[in-house]
Amino acid sequence: MNVELITTGSELMLGRVLNTHQQWLCRRLADLGHVVTRQVAVADTGDEIQQAVREALGRADLVITTGGLGPTTDDITRERIAELLGRKLVFQPDIRVHIENFFAQKGRSLPAGTSVETMVPEGALFFLNAMGTAPGLAMQVSPAECEQLQLGNGKARAAQGVKWLILLPGPPRELRPMFDRQIVPLLKRELADELFACHTLRTSGIGESRVQEFVAAPLQPLVERGLGIGYCARPGEVDVRLTASGAGADQRVRDGLAVVQKILGANIYGLDDEEIEEVVVRLLTARKKTLALAESCTGGNLAHRITNVAGASEIFLGGVVSYSNAAKQNLLGVRAATLAAHGAVSAEVAGEMAQGARNQFGADFALAVTGIAGPGGGTPEKPVGTVFIALASASGVTAKKFLNVWDRATFKQVTTMQALEWLRQAASA
Amino acid sequence: MNVELITTGSELMLGRVLNTHQQWLCRRLADLGHVVTRQVAVADTGDEIQQAVREALGRADLVITTGGLGPTTDDITRERIAELLGRKLVFQPDIRVHIENFFAQKGRSLPAGTSVETMVPEGALFFLNAMGTAPGLAMQVSPAECEQLQLGNGKARAAQGVKWLILLPGPPRELRPMFDRQIVPLLKRELADELFACHTLRTSGIGESRVQEFVAAPLQPLVERGLGIGYCARPGEVDVRLTASGAGADQRVRDGLAVVQKILGANIYGLDDEEIEEVVVRLLTARKKTLALAESCTGGNLAHRITNVAGASEIFLGGVVSYSNAAKQNLLGVRAATLAAHGAVSAEVAGEMAQGARNQFGADFALAVTGIAGPGGGTPEKPVGTVFIALASASGVTAKKFLNVWDRATFKQVTTMQALEWLRQAASA
Repeated sequence: MNVELITTGSELMLGRVLNTHQQWLCRRLADLGHVVTRQVAVADTGDEIQQAVREALGRADLVITTGGLGPTTDDITRERIAELLGRKLVFQPDIRVHIENFFAQKGRSLPAGTSVETMVPEGALFFLNAMGTAPGLAMQVSPAECEQLQLGNGKARAAQGVKWLILLPGPPRELRPMFDRQIVPLLKRELADELFACHTLRTSGIGESRVQEFVAAPLQPLVERGLGIGYCARPGEVDVRLTASGAGADQRVRDGLAVVQKILGANIYGLDDEEIEEVVVRLLTARKKTLALAESCTGGNLAHRITNVAGASEIFLGGVVSYSNAAKQNLLGVRAATLAAHGAVSAEVAGEMAQGARNQFGADFALAVTGIAGPGGGTPEKPVGTVFIALASASGVTAKKFLNVWDRATFKQVTTMQALEWLRQAASA
Repeated sequence: MNVELITTGSELMLGRVLNTHQQWLCRRLADLGHVVTRQVAVADTGDEIQQAVREALGRADLVITTGGLGPTTDDITRERIAELLGRKLVFQPDIRVHIENFFAQKGRSLPAGTSVETMVPEGALFFLNAMGTAPGLAMQVSPAECEQLQLGNGKARAAQGVKWLILLPGPPRELRPMFDRQIVPLLKRELADELFACHTLRTSGIGESRVQEFVAAPLQPLVERGLGIGYCARPGEVDVRLTASGAGADQRVRDGLAVVQKILGANIYGLDDEEIEEVVVRLLTARKKTLALAESCTGGNLAHRITNVAGASEIFLGGVVSYSNAAKQNLLGVRAATLAAHGAVSAEVAGEMAQGARNQFGADFALAVTGIAGPGGGTPEKPVGTVFIALASASGVTAKKFLNVWDRATFKQVTTMQALEWLRQAASA
């Protein structure tokens, strides 16, 4: 099955916003066994949208568009696709009620313009938007309609069978739950391909080529029976993705998981979509242990990641972002002598920060980070990227040194990952 | 002029990595007055790449590809594009010397496979890669070549004039400096288009529909003279983008900016690429004022955003993430009586948190946030989404109430935005 993705938005073409839909939707679709064959992004003008959809329907069995379903005048995807397919727009009272409730809950009056969102192309399914007002839409496009569009590249494929066209709202907070809760069931029902199984093991602390060196040979017998392996590296982590299709797909992937788990063991932090902060919160909650943080160079990102997890308040007591040396001394009890002797970026200061946070908050575990994020502040002895992470617990305080030579944003990300991974291992022990 | 962008990579189609080239290149090109008309991403197989380039050359005057120029066997962009255009690959000794020097500098021997990087399609310009080995390539494609490709959608445009095809390496750290230093001069020399102007005003605190209600009519006279308006909403903020082209483009956009500035005034936090945290850090730095934070429900995100700004350490002393009540009392001096009388989510506690942070860190400004991020923890009186933000400064402490009914992640984002916006206004006063 061919799947194409069309994201629309003039702000994408001007580079105003980062397109995160493509990655998110491609990953979700791949996990369902549908690998996207082409991603297209065009401005949200009617002609561009119509042209992109016409071409995509000529090649693909499933076409998903994002954006342009809202209430403002530059939201025209719904209208222009209805026009392309020659379908009338029909008023749907259920959508009207949904929109009225949405604004009533927020204590706001109905803004002008939302009435366009109540109109649905004839024959389309609509999906009420749990996080906003614009509904998603899904419609079947018949071979006859495809031919009327003068589709295609001359290949017979163009008009083969019924195609699905799905329109999703642009804001990620609306698109994502709608896709998971309302579109996935539709895809499973209407577009079930052959059996497909997919799991991803998420690892941290080993590079991509090492991961491959370790697991490729032991997985070879399963590969010969049809297991697919993919590796994907991001700063600080590597995914190992196992896929199989056809009869016995589930079992083959499960066998593969067992092999990888046995080899990479301690470096695997999670399965599929699990984020490391979720794993950490889950582990600490299960063990009824509490956590405190002392952050310098990660600047609050560690606390931010932990508090992204619903229920984090069960285990997270709090943290100090001690950017200044005075804050390290006053709030965490780091000694002036330690700062003077070793500098703020040192194993000694990291250790005192961790111990200080553990005492201040009365926590079971305390994690501390101090380092040089850059771009300024490096020295020959302690270049930009130098980091010390310390962990304090009932068994004492330990510190480790890392060298994370990246841009400022990636530095914060990678350092946060290393700290969370250490905490995860300590919390599992 | 039509510009299209083709990014290649199978990992993009599986959603394992985020595509950041599109935003980066689109923004750079827009700054030069070239708005990208289409972005396409395909797997890095030869057929997909050839098909995408063939189609793009049928529509666009400038086509830029990224990826597939390296030395490994899945890097085939150079070869398959040469094949598509029927051009021989010619050995370029200068590239060979560059690659040898590159490895010699690192004290490494020449790896196998790099010789493919020394081959250049006949007639192509090449750009030595300052950060790696694979050169960038640029070639003119003549109308005759376009016709030979059997291009196009039947429109006359297809074979009009000479087109440019530019091939860039995939790694961002190679692509970005190459584009800025080597490709921009080429574009300025060869593809100077008509005048183009674009500015974006970034606003906070008003919804997208309201922004449009306020500014659409007053801008109408300018729209009739060719001003383009676009709105882009993200949680808690709305961009108003003004564009114009042709003679007088700059003036039309400047006139538009003046109209919007007059109407939305205090809600405009920045221009173009400015992030609100950058504006805040800049304002505080200019006024030599320092900042401390006390965060409950934003959980460190405020500190994270502030510390994303290089040079934040000039003004940011630190923060406390006081998730537990004990932390609010012990680290910020919130009184037990206040917590008991009003609850942790109250204007009174927010005020004491702000005052406590200001005292603890000795800061000029202190911002405090307490609220219910959800999904749990709401009551009929204080539902999920209830937030109190307080600001302490030399002129005293003020608190405001907000109701941010969103999912947990968006709640944190929106609340952070509101706090930063308040701080921005206070720091500008």
